[in-house]
Amino acid sequence: MTITQHGREQKQLNKLYEDFDAMGLIPLWTIRDDLMPMSPCPQALPHLWRWADLLPLAERSGELVPVGHGCARRAIALSNPGLPGLPYATPNLWAAIHYLAPHEVAPAHRHSQSAFRFVIEGESVWTNVDGDAVAMRRGDLLLAPSWTYHEHHNTTDRPMTWIDGLDIPLVSRLDASFFEFGLDTLATCETPKRSRGERLWGHPGLRPIGQPDRSSSPLMAYRWEHTDAALTAQLELEAEGASSVIEPGHAGVRFSNPSTGKDSLLTIRTEMHRLLEGARTAPVKTVGSAVWQVFEGTGVATVGDRRFELSRGDLFVVPSWDELVLEAGDRLDLFRFSDEPVYEALGLADTYRGKSA
Amino acid sequence: MTITQHGREQKQLNKLYEDFDAMGLIPLWTIRDDLMPMSPCPQALPHLWRWADLLPLAERSGELVPVGHGCARRAIALSNPGLPGLPYATPNLWAAIHYLAPHEVAPAHRHSQSAFRFVIEGESVWTNVDGDAVAMRRGDLLLAPSWTYHEHHNTTDRPMTWIDGLDIPLVSRLDASFFEFGLDTLATCETPKRSRGERLWGHPGLRPIGQPDRSSSPLMAYRWEHTDAALTAQLELEAEGASSVIEPGHAGVRFSNPSTGKDSLLTIRTEMHRLLEGARTAPVKTVGSAVWQVFEGTGVATVGDRRFELSRGDLFVVPSWDELVLEAGDRLDLFRFSDEPVYEALGLADTYRGKSA
Amino acid sequence: MTITQHGREQKQLNKLYEDFDAMGLIPLWTIRDDLMPMSPCPQALPHLWRWADLLPLAERSGELVPVGHGCARRAIALSNPGLPGLPYATPNLWAAIHYLAPHEVAPAHRHSQSAFRFVIEGESVWTNVDGDAVAMRRGDLLLAPSWTYHEHHNTTDRPMTWIDGLDIPLVSRLDASFFEFGLDTLATCETPKRSRGERLWGHPGLRPIGQPDRSSSPLMAYRWEHTDAALTAQLELEAEGASSVIEPGHAGVRFSNPSTGKDSLLTIRTEMHRLLEGARTAPVKTVGSAVWQVFEGTGVATVGDRRFELSRGDLFVVPSWDELVLEAGDRLDLFRFSDEPVYEALGLADTYRGKSA
Amino acid sequence: MTITQHGREQKQLNKLYEDFDAMGLIPLWTIRDDLMPMSPCPQALPHLWRWADLLPLAERSGELVPVGHGCARRAIALSNPGLPGLPYATPNLWAAIHYLAPHEVAPAHRHSQSAFRFVIEGESVWTNVDGDAVAMRRGDLLLAPSWTYHEHHNTTDRPMTWIDGLDIPLVSRLDASFFEFGLDTLATCETPKRSRGERLWGHPGLRPIGQPDRSSSPLMAYRWEHTDAALTAQLELEAEGASSVIEPGHAGVRFSNPSTGKDSLLTIRTEMHRLLEGARTAPVKTVGSAVWQVFEGTGVATVGDRRFELSRGDLFVVPSWDELVLEAGDRLDLFRFSDEPVYEALGLADTYRGKSA
Repeated sequence: MTITQHGREQKQLNKLYEDFDAMGLIPLWTIRDDLMPMSPCPQALPHLWRWADLLPLAERSGELVPVGHGCARRAIALSNPGLPGLPYATPNLWAAIHYLAPHEVAPAHRHSQSAFRFVIEGESVWTNVDGDAVAMRRGDLLLAPSWTYHEHHNTTDRPMTWIDGLDIPLVSRLDASFFEFGLDTLATCETPKRSRGERLWGHPGLRPIGQPDRSSSPLMAYRWEHTDAALTAQLELEAEGASSVIEPGHAGVRFSNPSTGKDSLLTIRTEMHRLLEGARTAPVKTVGSAVWQVFEGTGVATVGDRRFELSRGDLFVVPSWDELVLEAGDRLDLFRFSDEPVYEALGLADTYRGKSA
Repeated sequence: MTITQHGREQKQLNKLYEDFDAMGLIPLWTIRDDLMPMSPCPQALPHLWRWADLLPLAERSGELVPVGHGCARRAIALSNPGLPGLPYATPNLWAAIHYLAPHEVAPAHRHSQSAFRFVIEGESVWTNVDGDAVAMRRGDLLLAPSWTYHEHHNTTDRPMTWIDGLDIPLVSRLDASFFEFGLDTLATCETPKRSRGERLWGHPGLRPIGQPDRSSSPLMAYRWEHTDAALTAQLELEAEGASSVIEPGHAGVRFSNPSTGKDSLLTIRTEMHRLLEGARTAPVKTVGSAVWQVFEGTGVATVGDRRFELSRGDLFVVPSWDELVLEAGDRLDLFRFSDEPVYEALGLADTYRGKSA
Repeated sequence: MTITQHGREQKQLNKLYEDFDAMGLIPLWTIRDDLMPMSPCPQALPHLWRWADLLPLAERSGELVPVGHGCARRAIALSNPGLPGLPYATPNLWAAIHYLAPHEVAPAHRHSQSAFRFVIEGESVWTNVDGDAVAMRRGDLLLAPSWTYHEHHNTTDRPMTWIDGLDIPLVSRLDASFFEFGLDTLATCETPKRSRGERLWGHPGLRPIGQPDRSSSPLMAYRWEHTDAALTAQLELEAEGASSVIEPGHAGVRFSNPSTGKDSLLTIRTEMHRLLEGARTAPVKTVGSAVWQVFEGTGVATVGDRRFELSRGDLFVVPSWDELVLEAGDRLDLFRFSDEPVYEALGLADTYRGKSA
Repeated sequence: MTITQHGREQKQLNKLYEDFDAMGLIPLWTIRDDLMPMSPCPQALPHLWRWADLLPLAERSGELVPVGHGCARRAIALSNPGLPGLPYATPNLWAAIHYLAPHEVAPAHRHSQSAFRFVIEGESVWTNVDGDAVAMRRGDLLLAPSWTYHEHHNTTDRPMTWIDGLDIPLVSRLDASFFEFGLDTLATCETPKRSRGERLWGHPGLRPIGQPDRSSSPLMAYRWEHTDAALTAQLELEAEGASSVIEPGHAGVRFSNPSTGKDSLLTIRTEMHRLLEGARTAPVKTVGSAVWQVFEGTGVATVGDRRFELSRGDLFVVPSWDELVLEAGDRLDLFRFSDEPVYEALGLADTYRGKSA
């Protein structure tokens, strides 16, 4: 090709790209390689937020920012450093620290997003879910499934803090958000120990006759005493010689929908893990992202090339396909939530388990 | 037609029927009307067996008939008077009173038939299911799902009696029986309060991570304390103004497979019902048959045109599409098992609910 | 034990059995061994009915027995010699030869039983299914799913014969029969080549938008030209080097519900098999029973210890767990129907495939 | 509050926000309203691309840009004007015009993304899917399900153009991409009329015995002659008095997986619609996005507040919850693909149908 030919061709090419641009077209061969990578290359990064940092900020917000319809929820979202400016812990998951001052009310609303709360400390708040008053106590998982009205009220002189988990980023990217405000007055001021849902559905293997299957759990609360008993039993069984539930020294329960046995929420998996003192997990890579919170104990999490020292309340993020290894200092209890049900529903789930060290 | 013609034709017809018979044929127009009735016309009849009659007979068997491989189970089957000579409580369901004398062992076997035991009184026996020792106590439901090895041993000086429920008639008519004897020695002599299955799966809404779904329940025991608590809660909720679970004054739980939310066994539904003193159920007709046993209390069951006075331990049968009405004298607790999962799986289920009196 | 003691005990035992009998009880240890056999021991026997015998009998019935409301269907049922007196080809399946004389009408009815017709010869009849006129031609499978109104009318001067298959024995034993007569006048006298159902649903992989899933097929006719083409293609692919669909020289299609991919009827599996000249199948044992009909060709079927020479139209029965081997003389096309969906739905299905000879 | 107090508080608030920022936190009350809108507010916009513009650009690319491993696919992506700089037709869907010059080969690869091609004109190319050669002809839908190897080769002297549809944006946002290159040589150079998959699975209501269910369709091609016949039949049935499949004058088929009856791909719905001359659809709003292409005919599409005149080959986008009305000039055939299976799998699907004008 002569220089002139080459120059003419280059001109034609330039004109072609101008025309693409004018027509709202992008040719595949000019797109950067990360459109379809060989394996997941998430923008989200492994990251740790320390409870010792979060809690004082939540408390200061409690003093300075009133709750109400302008600020319906005093929730402070974890923003993944790989997703700058976005209030997203991971590409699909919202995680926030929530603070409710004494006698405050977070008014009712409902939305297509699925939500839960997990409680690290305190026990002053009731969350009303479709009119059912649900106590919140340390170690409990509380649900507000898609399109259920929910509101929170603190009936005591003590503030309370917990974490909220939702699928806000997922639903936002899917353009599937529906939202409605509820009434200004509380659906109920009752403060029972157990919610109606628990009284109906919270009996092992028993379901009320005539109640149809639900897409999300009919159980709005999973109590710590049951979770703790289940984890204790798994490790006792292992000590008695039974095979491990997950791996040696590593127990785990999944919070499930008793009407179907599936995940408690359609889009979010929720689990509690326990590692015995000194236990170390085999490396695992999972398609989809997860947020972990230390419920009790100390240890180390290695996520990809990051190493996080863990203390009570600390939250960390595991992006898609980043390798995770957990090591317990003393006994380590961890709450985990992830978006795996999304991948399973779409045929995109995959997990790689490496060998133990 | 002349008489001669008519006679010739009759001859030809007679010859035709002879030829049908010789060829192994039966013409539809000679078959009695009950081949395809307008609605179910079961041969099985409503019937009541009194515990006061059954228990002494079981005890006399205990003295006279040794248990062992010749008589692997000292089980005495209810034989429906409409199915004479057959050891079938209903066309699909086997129900038997089972008696195990002090220190006796009913040796291990397994079969494609699904089985459960329900305990009216006593607590001296452990049933080992695939090597997991399961205590049997009053009010408990114990499972031996299809193809699980099971054996029973009485570790005490007291005899024990319970009822067995199986799908023997169904599997027999379906020509689907497989059976294997187990070892002569007990898989385990342990007598724990809670089985391993309960310790893994017996926590409300919690499932061990990594355990796949099972077609039958992984929970081999449903304890009375949970069943009782669930029924109590349902009636308390109703008293507080919530809508009834079944109907006013009538609570009920279904024993379910926590890995799927479905029936605990693939072919047999198991439930516990509670009627408040004086409650009366609306008339119900169901395709498929059921066996009921009074766990506690007194009352009256009207099944079709039969009326049964009920006392503790009494068993009665409701054939397909026969109308059932229950009336509680004092508070009435009833265990029920039925073959409804079969009909639901085959698209043949139907229920008619009449108005309350 | 002294003789006296022994005698006393025997007396007590006799009294015990009398009391059992009086109370409607049958002790397990007196029941013959076939209650729970080690593997299925069906009463039904392998049997062959020759088309050369059946067709003349059907024709004679056509002359002697009028069709109408007294004899709604001129159907002559195969009666398995192991089930004497019962019009059952197998414990779950009804099979009958059906004859409709010129210009006759078999009036409308519907029932909970599922039904199909398979046509060996002729093409003079339309079956109206819920008002949709469905032509019947050689090689076609026609459905009348549970609770659809159906009627047959012969619009020509030629009689027509086909076989009916239903789940009458199953539904009868399950006490689940519901039946209703339809109108005395035909829903439609139209005689189109293709039914409305075929025009909507009979396009490969295409479903009409907005039509919900159906428990039984929405397609009332499966035409021979498609079945033949599918079998031909399977064997051509095998000849081109692709792996066999069933085994070398043995092709097969299952008639399926295009809205779910499952069996065309909830309780009955329907299939067409083709064996190349000289092909021989590996021995197979299946839980559940089947009826086969030779559509075309000759060969030999060995069922358990019976050996049947096969000609066009012949029908034979394979009881549960009896071993089947097929050998083709010239090319052999076989229609098969079975009750396997029942066993799959109830977790009782099993198949054993032996090695080829 | 005094001015001093107010100033002090403002300072504290500023400090709080600085600390949030430093800690990687974003408070809910500072987030713009569109995080959880009252109903979907997609960034994507309704847009039309004219075939008359696209085709010449594709042809110029064919002359200027060689295909090969640097440019594995000469695909030019539609870039939604509401998603500037991104090669996404909608937030979940990739749509591109694909051009293959005479005798060119687009080499093999596979990926977790699901893909299809739809052909507006031409018939010179075969796509090999896991080694099965699939002809591409006008009106055909061709699949390359997740993780199947696929390559395209043009065996003629004529170029060919078609559109590609994939779930690239969805899988990218979900960080679930896996990708592998295949061999450099063609898996097969055969150019059969019908692929092996069609020969096995392309018979209405018939499935090969022994083939398990597949998560994506085993049928890699849906031929225009069947699609056209199905649409024609629907409108003929309507003309004969049957109820409309979608609405008066509006027929439609969904391309489905014959092994399950579900969508042909796990994440993408594919459909063909036909509107009679002058027909007008009722307004519809759907959660999730769709891309439509005019296969034949003229008309008008109103999407939200945009009005698009339609000609053969034109592509337009309907964002989530934007109202769509279609009006046919002459008879209008439209191909449609959407991400609705994603929303149905996650419990987020919803549709609003307005009244016809």
